Amino acid sequence: MKIASFRAAGAASWGFVDGDHVIDVGAVLGEQYPDLEALIAAEALDVAKAAIAEAPRVLLAEVVLTPVVSRPGKIFCIGHNYESHRQETGRAKVSYPSVFLRFADTLTAHGAALLRPRESTSLDYEGELAVIIGRGGRRISEDEAMAHVAGLAPSNDASIRDWQWHTQQFTPGKNFPQTCALGPWMVTPDEIEDLGAVTVTTRLNGQVMQSQPVSDMLFPIPRIIAYISTFTTLSPGDVILTGTPGGVGAKREPPVWMKPGDIVEIDIPGVGLLVNTVADET
Amino acid sequence: MKIASFRAAGAASWGFVDGDHVIDVGAVLGEQYPDLEALIAAEALDVAKAAIAEAPRVLLAEVVLTPVVSRPGKIFCIGHNYESHRQETGRAKVSYPSVFLRFADTLTAHGAALLRPRESTSLDYEGELAVIIGRGGRRISEDEAMAHVAGLAPSNDASIRDWQWHTQQFTPGKNFPQTCALGPWMVTPDEIEDLGAVTVTTRLNGQVMQSQPVSDMLFPIPRIIAYISTFTTLSPGDVILTGTPGGVGAKREPPVWMKPGDIVEIDIPGVGLLVNTVADET
Repeated sequence: MKIASFRAAGAASWGFVDGDHVIDVGAVLGEQYPDLEALIAAEALDVAKAAIAEAPRVLLAEVVLTPVVSRPGKIFCIGHNYESHRQETGRAKVSYPSVFLRFADTLTAHGAALLRPRESTSLDYEGELAVIIGRGGRRISEDEAMAHVAGLAPSNDASIRDWQWHTQQFTPGKNFPQTCALGPWMVTPDEIEDLGAVTVTTRLNGQVMQSQPVSDMLFPIPRIIAYISTFTTLSPGDVILTGTPGGVGAKREPPVWMKPGDIVEIDIPGVGLLVNTVADET
Repeated sequence: MKIASFRAAGAASWGFVDGDHVIDVGAVLGEQYPDLEALIAAEALDVAKAAIAEAPRVLLAEVVLTPVVSRPGKIFCIGHNYESHRQETGRAKVSYPSVFLRFADTLTAHGAALLRPRESTSLDYEGELAVIIGRGGRRISEDEAMAHVAGLAPSNDASIRDWQWHTQQFTPGKNFPQTCALGPWMVTPDEIEDLGAVTVTTRLNGQVMQSQPVSDMLFPIPRIIAYISTFTTLSPGDVILTGTPGGVGAKREPPVWMKPGDIVEIDIPGVGLLVNTVADET
């Protein structure tokens, strides 16, 4: 299933995507499950499926998509998780995933703008496969990890590079508002036959900038979930951005920065196509 | 004023500390302001003061203190903010504060245990002055910064050092549950005549391990607030841990790790004395 969060006629809702329509299940079950996080936390996907028949069908073009989950308690980002990106950034090989954090107020939706703040012009893309956690837990084993995944989604973990490099800690450059796109929807893991074969491609104004299969990850998703859940408890709706392939703008010669008017696409066939514009903060 | 969060007769509350008593203002105003964060967000300190006369007085010894704020949306930690600690850790000089993040579920209270997880024995103390944000904002100027401070509190930004050093990003070693003590209470800034003269002292089993005045900070509090609020919006109840003086256990020869049965105290005269035990996770 493809599940989206959106605003329909001004009201926040969620539902299943079916071709160019969305089935507005939130219109039926919204009191019990006001948002997708609540549905995930209740492990109530079957309840949602059973409500499809009575839910309104709306054209996708008539709703405003919002970030797949809008208020995750924890957003984890994995740094340098593709060898090509590790090499281009000159980072040392590490035995553990590199983990930094984002606040939920950095999220933006498919179709919305990534925001270039007043303080910088070094806005860079990072196409990534995002994992949305289903059942929470602590010390989840690698074997059990995929059973804790509610869905997969395209994401653009965009960076304000100069602020990212102020010190060794990436926090500032990864937490400007509206710099992380998540959408257009998530797909449930059963939709993906071979996760390793899924490719993450970033296009900037139509030109391919990054493209690699998930199988190239240095730390595969089960290992990441096991590692993170060792030091912190994962909860339903938490998000893990699993790292970006080589080809970021910062490491090109000359560097390529995103600027107002650009169109950036994160294309993950079988998962979704995330499209964003770029705008200056007003 | 000294303001504490606590459980009295099982119910979460908050109130003013007066000698060895606490004035349980939450018992009177709890419906309007269920916790200290709500009071701070409403900028309702005067309302709380006016309710003192009708609020029950309880012996401090009869309540269970909880972290000063229990559900801050954002907890920022500043790394290497005293020259002595920068030198002992061999970190490069930087022109900007080093910022990493903690989740709220890492907080623990005065009188409770800091938790040593199963995965490590390298539990280290870090005595720090914590800032609790009052009025929120974005791009707060250094001149205006102190007007956005609701209170100051002792904190112990304890670390699981091996996990902190897995990669350059500190996240894992700073986010194990119950590794950040915050309390016993916060004092409002008007209580402090000369903030620079305030000293932060850490004692482990009675022995002084760290001791430096706030004036030794490389980035003073107004600069930190201005910097952080440039890349993210600060909200009422957010917490900033302003960095630790030299003398951490990890950099001693041989290293000193905290272990079950230890007593660790963060003593900030004029602000408060934070005392914690250490326990193994069960």
